[in-house]
Amino acid sequence: PDACAIAAARARQAQLTKPPGSLARLEEIALFFAGWQGVERPMLERGRALIFAGNHGVAVHGVSAFPPEVTAQMVANFAAGGAAINALATLADLEIRVLPIELDRPTADFTRAPATTEAECLAALSIGAEAVEPGLHAIILGEMGIGNSTAAAALAARSFGGAVSDWVGPGTGLDRDGVERKTQVVADALAFHADAPHSPFDTLCRVGGREIAAMAGAVLRARQLGIPVILDGFISCAAVAPLAAATPAIVDHCLAGHCSAEPGHGLLLEKLGLEPLLRLGMRLGEGSGAAVATLIVRAALATHAQMATFAEAGVSSRA
Amino acid sequence: PDACAIAAARARQAQLTKPPGSLARLEEIALFFAGWQGVERPMLERGRALIFAGNHGVAVHGVSAFPPEVTAQMVANFAAGGAAINALATLADLEIRVLPIELDRPTADFTRAPATTEAECLAALSIGAEAVEPGLHAIILGEMGIGNSTAAAALAARSFGGAVSDWVGPGTGLDRDGVERKTQVVADALAFHADAPHSPFDTLCRVGGREIAAMAGAVLRARQLGIPVILDGFISCAAVAPLAAATPAIVDHCLAGHCSAEPGHGLLLEKLGLEPLLRLGMRLGEGSGAAVATLIVRAALATHAQMATFAEAGVSSRA
Repeated sequence: PDACAIAAARARQAQLTKPPGSLARLEEIALFFAGWQGVERPMLERGRALIFAGNHGVAVHGVSAFPPEVTAQMVANFAAGGAAINALATLADLEIRVLPIELDRPTADFTRAPATTEAECLAALSIGAEAVEPGLHAIILGEMGIGNSTAAAALAARSFGGAVSDWVGPGTGLDRDGVERKTQVVADALAFHADAPHSPFDTLCRVGGREIAAMAGAVLRARQLGIPVILDGFISCAAVAPLAAATPAIVDHCLAGHCSAEPGHGLLLEKLGLEPLLRLGMRLGEGSGAAVATLIVRAALATHAQMATFAEAGVSSRA
Repeated sequence: PDACAIAAARARQAQLTKPPGSLARLEEIALFFAGWQGVERPMLERGRALIFAGNHGVAVHGVSAFPPEVTAQMVANFAAGGAAINALATLADLEIRVLPIELDRPTADFTRAPATTEAECLAALSIGAEAVEPGLHAIILGEMGIGNSTAAAALAARSFGGAVSDWVGPGTGLDRDGVERKTQVVADALAFHADAPHSPFDTLCRVGGREIAAMAGAVLRARQLGIPVILDGFISCAAVAPLAAATPAIVDHCLAGHCSAEPGHGLLLEKLGLEPLLRLGMRLGEGSGAAVATLIVRAALATHAQMATFAEAGVSSRA
């Protein structure tokens, strides 16, 4: 981030017609964007919501409340404009790009093989990286993939350790038996891969998935280009977990859009050192929480850019 | 609220292409608006931010970090479009109405007299009521008034009891000595009025203020008309505290936009039985928190109205 731009933005905030610090988190967001965009008054004219989709071999174990064909059906729904992310991205004035990745080739069941080969994982990382281009003001990350909260739990557990049950939740709506089954599946996967290397790339290959690797690729490319990223829920955060466990600063250009109802998400945000903008109990994915959080970012940038200073408005400062 | 409209809206939500309940608070907001507007798909095309302003005799005790002339200066800033609420109301597509009430006649110093006479208080209640008209889809409440967090603390304390210090905070930025002085001022006021009647109207007259009474009037009129209200910070909530202490259901048509950094606000929201939409540490007033919360309401109404159903989108429901 650009320290000069942050200092200029901070100096501006001190002159705006409000008690110092009274916009709190909104002021922090404006400084964050000023730093990454390298300007005193950051913008969000070109924001893009990237929704990656993939299918998961682990779904054979009944770890989701929905059948696997829903991934492709929802991709069609995104294209037709009928999903939550369509309504939210329109409201937040975000361009939507939906990138389904080989939906007819689910990953391998990662309880007995790596989810993806290195080549498959690299291909997905590249798809994510190529979806981010210079000149964008922010990237909103989202995903669709029946079974991917199981992959996310495995990624978080393999990256940050702790009890498997702390990372496993109901996802789209498993009952208690389902959550128990899912917990066993994740434990089996961790055991199967226990002796394999624990590098970020190995973890991503072994217990990730294509849409997950694509999100990681998008985060890395955004970092190269200095573009802020708004993360969505448990799965988008799990996509960066292997990298962040090795290199915590990799999420410095990321905002946590929200804390979802998925029980592991709060813990994962703690591990990532991110304080979510919203806590609305949402648990839909698709980038929906990040899109709602974009509205908060817009509030931050609008007040920062548009408010009058004490001098401009002829308002007395403190007594 | 209209139980049939709520039932219709709930039935619609069950058909939308998302796991049941996965939009959580957004779904609750849509049902809340459906109930008050009496329609399956509520709207927010005609939203109005009402910003009432008044001056406070109690400011002579040095209970604010800013001098009293700032009230009128900020009203001019609202008119010129330079304040935070201007940027936020534009973003949230709200009409702004700024209603300064006799700024050249501050209320009486309520440590030694009622802040307003009954006639003055009624006049202010009427100004608030008249600012709300049939056909509005929502009202956003805000205020400006140097010294009014002292009045708010007194209102909350006289309405709900408890330790005076629990209700007093730094407002626009008092230091520790200032907060101690302010606490003593509130304690003095409560002692002075201790033997007077404790009806909502008496409390509002004695330790309120014109912009505060106007907010109470707007809330009451909105209730008569079935128009949802989005409350802002500590002061807007304190405006309804005397009424809510006597009649808790009076806030049933109100959403708490946010929980501010003012320490008494969280406690006051608890007493009002309201769960805030946002916790961003804001403490600016002017309706700024409520305007940001309006963006969340828009997200709720947009998803509710625009999403496709499972049948429309050809998406399989649960396994």
